[in-house]
Amino acid sequence: MRDFSQDHRWLSINTATVRKSRGQDLPLPDTIEACARRGIRAISPWRDQVAAAGLANVSRLVRAHGLQLSGYCRGGMFTTTDGAGLRAARDDNRRAVDEACELGAACLVLVVGALPGALQGKAAHKDVALARSQVRDGIAELLEYARQARMPLAIEPLHPMYAADRACVNTMEQALDLCEALDPMRSAHGERGAAALGVAVDVYHVWWDPKLEAQIARAGRERLLAFHVCDWLTPTTDLLNDRGMMGDGVIDIPRIRGWVEAQGFAGYSEVEIFSTGNWWQREHGEVLDTCIARHRSAV
Amino acid sequence: MRDFSQDHRWLSINTATVRKSRGQDLPLPDTIEACARRGIRAISPWRDQVAAAGLANVSRLVRAHGLQLSGYCRGGMFTTTDGAGLRAARDDNRRAVDEACELGAACLVLVVGALPGALQGKAAHKDVALARSQVRDGIAELLEYARQARMPLAIEPLHPMYAADRACVNTMEQALDLCEALDPMRSAHGERGAAALGVAVDVYHVWWDPKLEAQIARAGRERLLAFHVCDWLTPTTDLLNDRGMMGDGVIDIPRIRGWVEAQGFAGYSEVEIFSTGNWWQREHGEVLDTCIARHRSAV
Repeated sequence: MRDFSQDHRWLSINTATVRKSRGQDLPLPDTIEACARRGIRAISPWRDQVAAAGLANVSRLVRAHGLQLSGYCRGGMFTTTDGAGLRAARDDNRRAVDEACELGAACLVLVVGALPGALQGKAAHKDVALARSQVRDGIAELLEYARQARMPLAIEPLHPMYAADRACVNTMEQALDLCEALDPMRSAHGERGAAALGVAVDVYHVWWDPKLEAQIARAGRERLLAFHVCDWLTPTTDLLNDRGMMGDGVIDIPRIRGWVEAQGFAGYSEVEIFSTGNWWQREHGEVLDTCIARHRSAV
Repeated sequence: MRDFSQDHRWLSINTATVRKSRGQDLPLPDTIEACARRGIRAISPWRDQVAAAGLANVSRLVRAHGLQLSGYCRGGMFTTTDGAGLRAARDDNRRAVDEACELGAACLVLVVGALPGALQGKAAHKDVALARSQVRDGIAELLEYARQARMPLAIEPLHPMYAADRACVNTMEQALDLCEALDPMRSAHGERGAAALGVAVDVYHVWWDPKLEAQIARAGRERLLAFHVCDWLTPTTDLLNDRGMMGDGVIDIPRIRGWVEAQGFAGYSEVEIFSTGNWWQREHGEVLDTCIARHRSAV
């Protein structure tokens, strides 16, 4: 297991962590600048922030600062109620693959979607099995496109509390069942050594799972495409935006990182914190400095 | 599958559903009276409410009204940090078995506990595997006592969002692994036909699980000791107390009930709704009438 206590060379910042600074939107170029200034070597940006700053501009900034992308957030949302929605999702996901390639991302993270309409408060139906079938079909189709672009797809199993509205893939086991069904040969993407289809392991989503260690071993190096960290607070006051800084909650992050690295994972540890009431209220420089400190002490 | 549309003979009310009436505490005798007046044949009371009203008094009321208990809430909380805590938990759980017997409950529901101190906001440690080991030991010990009392123990897997502070048994598969390890022979408790150790299936906790149908089949009739219903709202605004009335959320309750009944389950459908902002603000008679209506239309 790598020693993180001496430096932060393996720290990546998911840009949602500093989406807001003192409650105000922080433009992506400012985030890139602030990360580079601190010797942070990698980020994982969100599509809406990239679009706001301009893809070419972000691509130029990333390269100018020598930043890597531990992932690109995000594709997915495959579940729909009609053919038009299906086509729109397909086209949008292909654009996400193209953008990820343009930015040189290590993978495109997939938040697969759940019951259509639920995120807007009104689910079109209650058939989670149907949603899961659509997700499987959507990933299968996107995978063909992503293979040609040589962009690995990372299914992110989300915590079961998001099964209704954000992602109906909710355990590592379920995500890996999909990987084995759709990419049984663990087809590698050449120089990256990663399978064409794998998983993003976010400790917030999976820490509770009694089968976690076994499923990480099942994933193996080829399918472990990303490793995300934050912490689970007690109490947690909001289902989405009350994530904790590493060390402030109950997740034994080093233990899980040990399991991931035992499989040969040697990538970045990506900090992804949504926190309306705490971290998004602070100045982004303070947040980044805290991420660096906690990366050393609590990851 | 039983037809619930014509009457409410298989409706049970978990008394937490009307713990408050117009925001004020509702004493258990009032709940019993209100249920009996509506022809509701079963309840599942909580220990604190029973203690407040007096065990003998509640026992007398239950028998006077000819009510059955679909379960008794609750035993468990097996995780501790020291021997004194362990002994206190053991003694308290034995009292819970005794009370369940006195009240003639169908089972004692177990909410097994999680990281000690987390419910109070300060976890004593982060070792969920240790907590799970203590839970296993605690159930094993209580099972011996409960066997002699002929009181079935129903492990209730709680939603993974409670893994830190309330229960570190979070899936049906995990609960059934425990049942098979501790009660491999599915030892029946004589006249009841139930295994000594089984599960309480609460749709709120398990609806998201891709393995749910298979695990219900694995449980079989002997281990399906209780069936709890409410609904998952989108959005859910509180991790504990924002449960929905059946039909107001996204859970396909009839489908899950069909799976349970396909195994031969023929017990009560127990309504358990924690709802600070909505149902606990209403008059309890209105809440009970709504439970009856939704039991017919949405369960």
